[in-house]
Amino acid sequence: MQINFNNLGEAETKENSQEISKAVSQLRQDLITGDWVVIATGRAKRPDSFANFERIKDDKGIEDCLFEDPVASGQEPDVLIYADNEGQWSLRVFPNKYPTVSPDVVAKAIPEGPYFSMPGVGFHEVVVTRDHFKQLALMDVLAVAEVFDAFQDRYLDLMSKKNVNYISIFHNHGKEAGASISHPHSQIMAIPVIAPYLQGQLDGAELYYRRNKQCVFCTMIEFEKEFGKRIVFENEDFVAFCPYASRAAFEVWVAPKKHNPYFERITDLEKVKLAQVFGASLQAIFKALNDPPYNFYINTAPCDGKDYPHFHWHIEILPHTSIWAGFELETGIEISTLASEEAAEYLRKQL
Amino acid sequence: MQINFNNLGEAETKENSQEISKAVSQLRQDLITGDWVVIATGRAKRPDSFANFERIKDDKGIEDCLFEDPVASGQEPDVLIYADNEGQWSLRVFPNKYPTVSPDVVAKAIPEGPYFSMPGVGFHEVVVTRDHFKQLALMDVLAVAEVFDAFQDRYLDLMSKKNVNYISIFHNHGKEAGASISHPHSQIMAIPVIAPYLQGQLDGAELYYRRNKQCVFCTMIEFEKEFGKRIVFENEDFVAFCPYASRAAFEVWVAPKKHNPYFERITDLEKVKLAQVFGASLQAIFKALNDPPYNFYINTAPCDGKDYPHFHWHIEILPHTSIWAGFELETGIEISTLASEEAAEYLRKQL
Repeated sequence: MQINFNNLGEAETKENSQEISKAVSQLRQDLITGDWVVIATGRAKRPDSFANFERIKDDKGIEDCLFEDPVASGQEPDVLIYADNEGQWSLRVFPNKYPTVSPDVVAKAIPEGPYFSMPGVGFHEVVVTRDHFKQLALMDVLAVAEVFDAFQDRYLDLMSKKNVNYISIFHNHGKEAGASISHPHSQIMAIPVIAPYLQGQLDGAELYYRRNKQCVFCTMIEFEKEFGKRIVFENEDFVAFCPYASRAAFEVWVAPKKHNPYFERITDLEKVKLAQVFGASLQAIFKALNDPPYNFYINTAPCDGKDYPHFHWHIEILPHTSIWAGFELETGIEISTLASEEAAEYLRKQL
Repeated sequence: MQINFNNLGEAETKENSQEISKAVSQLRQDLITGDWVVIATGRAKRPDSFANFERIKDDKGIEDCLFEDPVASGQEPDVLIYADNEGQWSLRVFPNKYPTVSPDVVAKAIPEGPYFSMPGVGFHEVVVTRDHFKQLALMDVLAVAEVFDAFQDRYLDLMSKKNVNYISIFHNHGKEAGASISHPHSQIMAIPVIAPYLQGQLDGAELYYRRNKQCVFCTMIEFEKEFGKRIVFENEDFVAFCPYASRAAFEVWVAPKKHNPYFERITDLEKVKLAQVFGASLQAIFKALNDPPYNFYINTAPCDGKDYPHFHWHIEILPHTSIWAGFELETGIEISTLASEEAAEYLRKQL
């Protein structure tokens, strides 16, 4: 890239400001990965117009729901269940009936000509909450904290298993976000290989630390707290903000304020504090975008036996307000039609 | 990643084969980037079942089409036009009326706290073919060659412009693939920054060359020609194949057999040969998947003044047969429910 970074010290001169006002968009660099995103201000929409994204209707009712009574519908036996004194369950975790990976094989790379394959080894579980109609955005703080407690419980169990080097915890809400079953549920996938996107963040965090002697996430969080405009919600321990180089309109990250690479080390009190900030973020998205489809996932350091002191675990929430097109696919350069400052302002108004 | 690559020399033992048969999926490594994909054989579908993907209906007719008569609909003036002796046009290129980037600014990085932004500078053009109802899959070889001629013509012009370090040529077909206008058209985006996905391929090709003293794409092509099962179509100069580590069912790559990093150096004869192989691939996809939405893009070496001797230009075609879900988004690990050998076999049957 022939970009001149030499005279960055000049900061924003009057000339630069004029240039920006003439441009129909702004390129913003992700501080962690170095990737660029496009904020297409020339195609900018009003924040409230994103709620009108056309949705695929969910035609299945509660009577056909496979997760309403997992035992009766023939799901796998629970590996974890939360119940009250009367035996009424509130959350249960069981292996996916149609897993993407399976536990009973050895992860060994097999050459095929110049290529390598491996059996799809690992664990694939489903985390289901009780109420078919109560998505996470509508739950109270303690119910959300219970979900994170289940994530942590399963993480701690799975990280010790053979062949598990990376555990992906993610949640799809709405058909456009890939949820084939509408009953609220999250998924846990424990596999031998580290994902490219996480690897990019791990490498970026490492490089940033070597250059700047500080955590890139801590740097971002410090700046965002001071700047204020991209903050959605915060308490003493956690902060929710729309990242500077958002890949999608209304993208929100939730991160602990105190440096910590490992989600699985979260304390009980922190789970409640996290549930407060994370829950408020989902509520704001729910209201602002009229119950949009979304994905969220936890980005945390791998469990491959190595140390990742410069990583900083966090959650990334990606609402779906448009269809991904060719340019994004090819380039990995996302085009967003809303700056993250405006998204955050609109989200704050919902709370 | 704690994967044991030490005893790869053992190749496929009987034990390994049994392990694979027990596994519900296979992990395959992309030879270029090192990324892994999941082939979920446990969720495998029959090749003909992929045609049933539910589509968004296009409700706009030809009478409302903005590209049917670009002059009358107020598009920007043409920068290139192909016409016959009677002045009847067959293809025209004009700047996008709502560009994502604009030409009249200087690409200068501007600090904002710890971050950097840049004005969205560059060129954004649209390549439109004449017939509203004749998509690329239905065109004859010379008409497809003309499209590649236009791509090359515009590439050669744009690569010399200030601030242009990378030119993205892509095509969205169908609403699910991001085509907001159904009239067949491609897009050209010339920008100052290199895209992350291409950068990953450039880095991977460089690393592979350093280790193996040969082009990773040439290695793949040689192996695929010999192996045969993943070939869709080929002639003397080009080959279409379903890549070993396909990210999506029915993904097809079209590449020149002779090593060449730079698409823009394609000869007139090669354009016809390319059109033959590329056109056959699109026709096979059209028939096999019942006119699916798809994206394709040209991955070629950047035009930033550096040499990229170890890259190998090619086209990647990605049909949409399902919705991208949370696991893909988080991890960048794609899950495909069809092995590329089976996809290629089914595509060959269409020809």
